[in-house]
Amino acid sequence: MVRERIPVGVVGATGVVGQELVRRLARHPWFELVAVAASERSVGRTLGELGGWGEGELPAAIAALAVQPLASSLPASIVFSALDAALAARAEEELARAGGTVVSNASAWRMDPRVPLLIPEVNPEHLALLRRQEFGGGGIVTNPNCCVAGLTLVLKPLHDAFGVEEVMVTTFQAVSGAGYPGVPSLDILDNLIPHIAGEEEKIQSEPAKILGVLTADGVAPTPVRISAQAVRVPVRHGHTLSIALRLGRRVPLEEVRRVLAGWPGASPARGLPSAPARPLEVLEEPDVPQPLRHRDIGGGMTVTVGRLRPCPVWDVRLVAVVHNAVRGAAGAALLNAELLVREGLPQAAQPASRGLWVA
Amino acid sequence: MVRERIPVGVVGATGVVGQELVRRLARHPWFELVAVAASERSVGRTLGELGGWGEGELPAAIAALAVQPLASSLPASIVFSALDAALAARAEEELARAGGTVVSNASAWRMDPRVPLLIPEVNPEHLALLRRQEFGGGGIVTNPNCCVAGLTLVLKPLHDAFGVEEVMVTTFQAVSGAGYPGVPSLDILDNLIPHIAGEEEKIQSEPAKILGVLTADGVAPTPVRISAQAVRVPVRHGHTLSIALRLGRRVPLEEVRRVLAGWPGASPARGLPSAPARPLEVLEEPDVPQPLRHRDIGGGMTVTVGRLRPCPVWDVRLVAVVHNAVRGAAGAALLNAELLVREGLPQAAQPASRGLWVA
Amino acid sequence: MVRERIPVGVVGATGVVGQELVRRLARHPWFELVAVAASERSVGRTLGELGGWGEGELPAAIAALAVQPLASSLPASIVFSALDAALAARAEEELARAGGTVVSNASAWRMDPRVPLLIPEVNPEHLALLRRQEFGGGGIVTNPNCCVAGLTLVLKPLHDAFGVEEVMVTTFQAVSGAGYPGVPSLDILDNLIPHIAGEEEKIQSEPAKILGVLTADGVAPTPVRISAQAVRVPVRHGHTLSIALRLGRRVPLEEVRRVLAGWPGASPARGLPSAPARPLEVLEEPDVPQPLRHRDIGGGMTVTVGRLRPCPVWDVRLVAVVHNAVRGAAGAALLNAELLVREGLPQAAQPASRGLWVA
Amino acid sequence: MVRERIPVGVVGATGVVGQELVRRLARHPWFELVAVAASERSVGRTLGELGGWGEGELPAAIAALAVQPLASSLPASIVFSALDAALAARAEEELARAGGTVVSNASAWRMDPRVPLLIPEVNPEHLALLRRQEFGGGGIVTNPNCCVAGLTLVLKPLHDAFGVEEVMVTTFQAVSGAGYPGVPSLDILDNLIPHIAGEEEKIQSEPAKILGVLTADGVAPTPVRISAQAVRVPVRHGHTLSIALRLGRRVPLEEVRRVLAGWPGASPARGLPSAPARPLEVLEEPDVPQPLRHRDIGGGMTVTVGRLRPCPVWDVRLVAVVHNAVRGAAGAALLNAELLVREGLPQAAQPASRGLWVA
Repeated sequence: MVRERIPVGVVGATGVVGQELVRRLARHPWFELVAVAASERSVGRTLGELGGWGEGELPAAIAALAVQPLASSLPASIVFSALDAALAARAEEELARAGGTVVSNASAWRMDPRVPLLIPEVNPEHLALLRRQEFGGGGIVTNPNCCVAGLTLVLKPLHDAFGVEEVMVTTFQAVSGAGYPGVPSLDILDNLIPHIAGEEEKIQSEPAKILGVLTADGVAPTPVRISAQAVRVPVRHGHTLSIALRLGRRVPLEEVRRVLAGWPGASPARGLPSAPARPLEVLEEPDVPQPLRHRDIGGGMTVTVGRLRPCPVWDVRLVAVVHNAVRGAAGAALLNAELLVREGLPQAAQPASRGLWVA
Repeated sequence: MVRERIPVGVVGATGVVGQELVRRLARHPWFELVAVAASERSVGRTLGELGGWGEGELPAAIAALAVQPLASSLPASIVFSALDAALAARAEEELARAGGTVVSNASAWRMDPRVPLLIPEVNPEHLALLRRQEFGGGGIVTNPNCCVAGLTLVLKPLHDAFGVEEVMVTTFQAVSGAGYPGVPSLDILDNLIPHIAGEEEKIQSEPAKILGVLTADGVAPTPVRISAQAVRVPVRHGHTLSIALRLGRRVPLEEVRRVLAGWPGASPARGLPSAPARPLEVLEEPDVPQPLRHRDIGGGMTVTVGRLRPCPVWDVRLVAVVHNAVRGAAGAALLNAELLVREGLPQAAQPASRGLWVA
Repeated sequence: MVRERIPVGVVGATGVVGQELVRRLARHPWFELVAVAASERSVGRTLGELGGWGEGELPAAIAALAVQPLASSLPASIVFSALDAALAARAEEELARAGGTVVSNASAWRMDPRVPLLIPEVNPEHLALLRRQEFGGGGIVTNPNCCVAGLTLVLKPLHDAFGVEEVMVTTFQAVSGAGYPGVPSLDILDNLIPHIAGEEEKIQSEPAKILGVLTADGVAPTPVRISAQAVRVPVRHGHTLSIALRLGRRVPLEEVRRVLAGWPGASPARGLPSAPARPLEVLEEPDVPQPLRHRDIGGGMTVTVGRLRPCPVWDVRLVAVVHNAVRGAAGAALLNAELLVREGLPQAAQPASRGLWVA
Repeated sequence: MVRERIPVGVVGATGVVGQELVRRLARHPWFELVAVAASERSVGRTLGELGGWGEGELPAAIAALAVQPLASSLPASIVFSALDAALAARAEEELARAGGTVVSNASAWRMDPRVPLLIPEVNPEHLALLRRQEFGGGGIVTNPNCCVAGLTLVLKPLHDAFGVEEVMVTTFQAVSGAGYPGVPSLDILDNLIPHIAGEEEKIQSEPAKILGVLTADGVAPTPVRISAQAVRVPVRHGHTLSIALRLGRRVPLEEVRRVLAGWPGASPARGLPSAPARPLEVLEEPDVPQPLRHRDIGGGMTVTVGRLRPCPVWDVRLVAVVHNAVRGAAGAALLNAELLVREGLPQAAQPASRGLWVA
């Protein structure tokens, strides 16, 4: 019983998402953080020295981990990647080719036909792609863009029930989504910025893959058309989405509400350590959801929905809040890794007796 | 030459919009502010005592004006109303019945079939309704909701050129739009609120009237369908609109740009003291317009447009910024009053020789 | 064993401090919230209906409590008061005269010579005043102003060790300190306000009483002279204090640091449910404490200290952060009530067997 | 009459202060901006291309100026420097040795005994140091740190009238003081930072030199002792200072007020194009000055003072607001350059007939 938890590593451990991963791994029931890597600037310093942690957030063993340089392997069964997209394209492939199982938050590999773009409550069956990958013994699994995480969780039950044909979405994105140092305060105090590089393209393309059908050739995307406007706003955490939907058929609003409120998510995700009790929560107050008040519901993994109402042009309008750094990034990657483990992947990560660490 | 400027009054002079009206009237070439009225709390105090004015903003004669109680008449040819809607419904009618010409920013009378809902660059011909009004010798003219002012200025040239059939709009509304004290800081610091009472209804209904056709029976609304989501954000001034449009026919994006950028506005508005050189300005930088940087263009009367691009679902997407307190309120009312004067209304306001005060 | 916890009530339960009290009482090991009262507007509605609670914060039994009107008694052994000062003067006296033990956050009775102004880690012996009070069978205990709570916790160990003769303090006060709706967003976005009514007077007078010596005649104030400037800043929670001190004698800075960092607080406070592990925490990073990062340390009950350095004019400069709504209000009142119970007051509150509910 | 205005250049033209200099030079009655230089990144692009300018702020001739690399000379009579201190130490010396007259906002040379640290209303006589400098034909003149500009303008009249012996100051510094990109939004939204590198040292040392006496050997500093705490706050522009003073003798508060309110500044500064009508303005409202409302008074060159009151520990407390980017930087440098020209320095800058460009 020397090893009870699965050894994992984090590359890109010093950014906003990397830090959130470290913080959550520090108290994770299944995973043990044993290695961290980052770009040159931080190499050699310990996580504790790099700081930015709240009181009691890091156990001594984790605070003492020294940052390693990015390399083709880490002594870990699963490697979480919070790298910038520019670095991730190559670094994640190298890690996979060296036999690692990479669970990535980066966008580099999301749309690659061999790579699952995964939300465990939505498309756990896409994980089968991983077994077909040919990166030596390793592989890459990705989670979607932060807005897409929230949007697709809303779309999935409606798509299954009624069909979703067209989507208009305008986002109100928190500054933490831009990382650190990220958005200069002079750009955002008493202001907003109606552009985030690459964001609209991701919002418009990723959901079709996630909602797509697994075939022998890969994933056939669902023909949902999405038009997005991304806007940065002076909010610390929590992306808010203003969404209008054209459904496949006319349905009473109450049926929409019932479908959203009652949705349990796909069964393989249920009970995973990072899975919230409910992936969606429909709020009834007239002026919610709000990022400040609702971003942390379900430990940041629940997407809150409100302002549900008929749309004068299409069928339904609503507002959703998703915690960008949790459900949209670190928590998403963790949940993906938990699904992998439950599904027996990677094999190297399976302890002799799973009973040792499964809650 | 005893009287060179037209005597005007302001009711509701102490709120955010009323103060902006006073500030602009203090240096207006045609109008002379001679009377101010407000609710009980401020009665008897002078504008100077009520404060909130920047250095040098109020000439001594205006600072010395004492606030009068709301009553059925003011000794002025034109009465600007910045009253709350609840008070405005009755107070404005009484002012009109007593012979006053009321130029109102309130929503109370906007949708009344007898009352022009006016943007001088868009529908100056609707002013003809005023002559048909039967409020004794007086009358009521209104300007639209602050978001509608920006939205309709964008829609008008596109509607004339291509037809606008459907509109999706999500707003990012500044706190000054809620007046003072308005939005509590605890509600909006590090937060946003996806609901503003009555706002979406106004955005969805007012443009159809403004873009409508004047007939013998009143205004026949244009059949444009609008779906709106209104959101309060932590910005001081300047509403930002995320807009998607379905046009009457397919047109190349460059034609849309050309129509917006070249639009001069209706000729009766041109050259009025509050009319900006251009009612619309199309910006080319990739991340604009922004409320902080663009709300004051054209003295706050120009609507800036950016992010013009094809919409993956409909035809066009764009972002617009409108200064809510100026083009959306005080400046809108002033421009309406200027149009009235140019059109010879009210007759009492016409000086013996207009040459005396026309610039 | 019908009653295991002490029944308590809250008057002024609907404001920012009252809500924080309710939230903390909802999970308190000793106290059971059985009654809430507030001003007219909320009477008859339940706490759950009044809302503003985060997910899972209120157990059903507490959410179901209906707000009662303010009256001279509540069916509770201890009544917490979060009333405005204007109401508190009379209402708290009536509650006490009716036999209640009032634990108040209001300022009304703080400087009354019969009333203890209490910080359990600083002056628990002042509680003796309560036994001398002549409000019928009841009594009043108060906690200090929110800034004073932080300032006095810093002053106490230094005063005991070296003497503190003069204090200069400038405060950076969070908007939650003004209650709700409190500070209008138009007043504080991109701004600060260098005045808070009554605040400087409290900061300049209350510490001398708290640090004073209990005598047969009451409390003899300590002759410390304090000069304060209070400023409201755009921060949600957490007051920051810039402090300069003239001590009774020259001491090396390291001795000051040692005294602050090692201070355990008075022994009667130790181990109380709301008492933090350390009342003070001295931070060594060069740019701390910061309200966002440090206000929640010790559950909001620890005052963090940083920037400790020699003062070019006096002896020592430092910066402290205190959570205004917790250590400066709700948590302070709770800690006072816990001290009362530990000291056997009020007698009515003592269960047959204290062992039942003491952890 | 080929040359009517004095040709000037700006090094460091692309930062926050450099941009403000360019903006003000674009409409300056005496100076003509003919050359701009900056670090590598911007070289070769025009000011117009670099953007960040509001509508109509840059005349075409200035927008067309291409950024040159930093070099030892610019074809200009006066070179304004808005360089970072690290670059300024060497670059400004080289410019001076090549014969240039450098008017610098950088801190590098401020405390050099040969260099005047100048506020024209306070110590114009220090300009005499420039004639003694031995940097070839050129020379260096500096303006103080942004907080020092505000503090010293307050101290000067009080020092002359009563003596100022000790000063406690806590600053509330706007984010624009850190330049661009400067303060990350994640560090300052809902937060403040009680440390600004090097700031307190400057505030504690520079006023003594500015208030010092010119002797044959240089400037003998005034023995005023200052203790400073610098804090960054979420405000865009305008530093606020909380100041307590120990004066040389007891004086009635009204005398202090009279001295501050009536102070005209040193006569050589009066009437210079950038000199405000009054260098100080004493406000009487109870909750002012505020950075949002008062930073722009006097075109940003007036320091506003409020909350003037007796100090319970020393003699006087007050609050001052200074526009950090104007009176504390760009406007300060301009005013210094104007004083130079009025005093006949540099000789190369004197047109054949001063009447041509003096207003």
